[in-house]
Amino acid sequence: MKSNEEWMELALHLAESTIGQTSPNPSVGAVIVKNGELLGVGTHLKAGEAHAEVHAITQAGEKAEGADVYVTLEPCAHYGKTPPCAELLVQSKVKKVYIACLDPNPKVAGKGVAILEEAGIEVETGICEQQALRINRHFFHFHQKKRPFVTLKAATTLDGKTATVTGNSKWITSEQAREDVHKQRHQHDAILVGKNTVKQDNPNLTTRLPKGGKNPIRLILDTHLSLKDGNYHIFNQDAPTWVVCTEQADRRAFQKQYPHVRVLSIPLETIDIEEVLVMLKEEKIQSIYVEGGASIHQSFLQKELFDTCHWYVAPKLLGGKNAQSVIGGQSPEWMSDAQNLTFESVEQLGPDIKIVAIPKEEA
Amino acid sequence: MKSNEEWMELALHLAESTIGQTSPNPSVGAVIVKNGELLGVGTHLKAGEAHAEVHAITQAGEKAEGADVYVTLEPCAHYGKTPPCAELLVQSKVKKVYIACLDPNPKVAGKGVAILEEAGIEVETGICEQQALRINRHFFHFHQKKRPFVTLKAATTLDGKTATVTGNSKWITSEQAREDVHKQRHQHDAILVGKNTVKQDNPNLTTRLPKGGKNPIRLILDTHLSLKDGNYHIFNQDAPTWVVCTEQADRRAFQKQYPHVRVLSIPLETIDIEEVLVMLKEEKIQSIYVEGGASIHQSFLQKELFDTCHWYVAPKLLGGKNAQSVIGGQSPEWMSDAQNLTFESVEQLGPDIKIVAIPKEEA
Repeated sequence: MKSNEEWMELALHLAESTIGQTSPNPSVGAVIVKNGELLGVGTHLKAGEAHAEVHAITQAGEKAEGADVYVTLEPCAHYGKTPPCAELLVQSKVKKVYIACLDPNPKVAGKGVAILEEAGIEVETGICEQQALRINRHFFHFHQKKRPFVTLKAATTLDGKTATVTGNSKWITSEQAREDVHKQRHQHDAILVGKNTVKQDNPNLTTRLPKGGKNPIRLILDTHLSLKDGNYHIFNQDAPTWVVCTEQADRRAFQKQYPHVRVLSIPLETIDIEEVLVMLKEEKIQSIYVEGGASIHQSFLQKELFDTCHWYVAPKLLGGKNAQSVIGGQSPEWMSDAQNLTFESVEQLGPDIKIVAIPKEEA
Repeated sequence: MKSNEEWMELALHLAESTIGQTSPNPSVGAVIVKNGELLGVGTHLKAGEAHAEVHAITQAGEKAEGADVYVTLEPCAHYGKTPPCAELLVQSKVKKVYIACLDPNPKVAGKGVAILEEAGIEVETGICEQQALRINRHFFHFHQKKRPFVTLKAATTLDGKTATVTGNSKWITSEQAREDVHKQRHQHDAILVGKNTVKQDNPNLTTRLPKGGKNPIRLILDTHLSLKDGNYHIFNQDAPTWVVCTEQADRRAFQKQYPHVRVLSIPLETIDIEEVLVMLKEEKIQSIYVEGGASIHQSFLQKELFDTCHWYVAPKLLGGKNAQSVIGGQSPEWMSDAQNLTFESVEQLGPDIKIVAIPKEEA
């Protein structure tokens, strides 16, 4: 017979399998069990569709009465696009509900638990909480910090270079590392790059995985809409493309050429990253994957507006102080002014390594 | 009862414990066993002193007759500073000799085994060979490639920087990483730096470990002996210091000021790394630990004259294209001209990581 943790792990596995496809909703899994027998499973597949609990209860049918429910996130308590799941569980007369973590959304937090408890259903929270928080890292961050979760991504040589003096950069990392990048694209709401990256690399910025994947919104920062005349891949219709510019830019000419591209104008003389994040928050973009280049990375670094770094390091030494450094801009005067991080993990990806680091919380 | 591998592991452990203190001799361990009982152990402690086998046989005394001997390196066959160990083993009437690896030195290779076999002693080679080769990596390399083993060492931020635009670099890495650097110094015959590193950091370049350690020779490349007037720590008498210059430099003035420093003059207009290595080979320097800076690293990289890279990466982002890159000089035009490496290991050292990489052998 499985333990509570083991049943919750199944629910987490279901939730984790939908990362990237439920935004702006969280990824949730639910499992219904009685006398050690599995009666129903469910996972939320897409915003606007049924919640995890609904799928699981539907599958269990009348057997749900007196059963235990394992759900990775607190059942919702409000009438949104679907009726509240907490009430569905009450109607189904389940006996006990195990919840991995509470909902960060103020519309819901604690209310789901309250509905269940008022109806006499036992509730236990906090089983496998860390794993559950991690699955919806972007979603939680968005609701708590009121801005998108920002991942800075870079692919560099061991000596920190992303291109030669002539801008040549193909390829630094291996196929295995590049496949991981595509997985990350699938898991983020938007990819952000600067206009120089578009000019230099002419990337597609779509998700190309052996078994498919979701294309995030492609976001380009281009102060003067200078990409207008370039005929770049990024303006194809394979995925939505948004361009952020300032009010001096000639939007009309740009839109005429690219009517399918959305132009967002910032009422400032230069693009300010903080403003961009406010704007994206309004657009309900919960996570952005920043793929560079060097100046873009520098602007996020300078304002300390990032939440994790994904560094793909290739076993190569390029050399040359005039080769392209991974982060641009001006150097601080003192090493003590560097941004402190904590290494979260190092993993091997083919011949390369992937280093994940997060900003260090200062004591 | 221990297996052959287990006894050899004890001999390897003895050998490994003397890395750094036996040069120009290799580190060797020997173990004598009969009926599963340990009768004698030995390890070579210092060039000019007794070999591992001598210590072990002395300890075993007459009991060595009929015993098994485990030795990490082929017993010597020539009269050097001590009589040949192969003959000592014959005189001691041991039964069988297990040898982890053969000697790369042409004066010895295979001859030790021949002496033993001619005397009717059984010989088995190759037990734990990889570990044994690794312990004497510098020694083997020196005798096979006829030049010192070169370790490139760097301490960088995650974005590949070693100092800010003003040259400030203290401290990038943690105490744990710096302690590992001191262990490496102990294990190399010489440390090599360029004059800019001396001017910028004024380092001591001595081995400072909680429990002591050997100071390697401090080698400075200084074309014009321009360090003469600086009163740098490196010219103190804590460790031997050698300066490499070209023939235009004013040796006489320099030696007058620093009579205890050895000056090696290269008959060229500029210092050529290849020539430096030839000179160091003549001086029987088996291993050098290259601590930079950026131009020195670049010269080793350009000539592909290095055997391993020790990269200490701190969880910091500095930023700034004008901050000091870990490798200097000119960038190649194409990424495909980068030096390919293979990552050998990644380990955590306190908050930092240490990446060990070796040049990739092209197919």
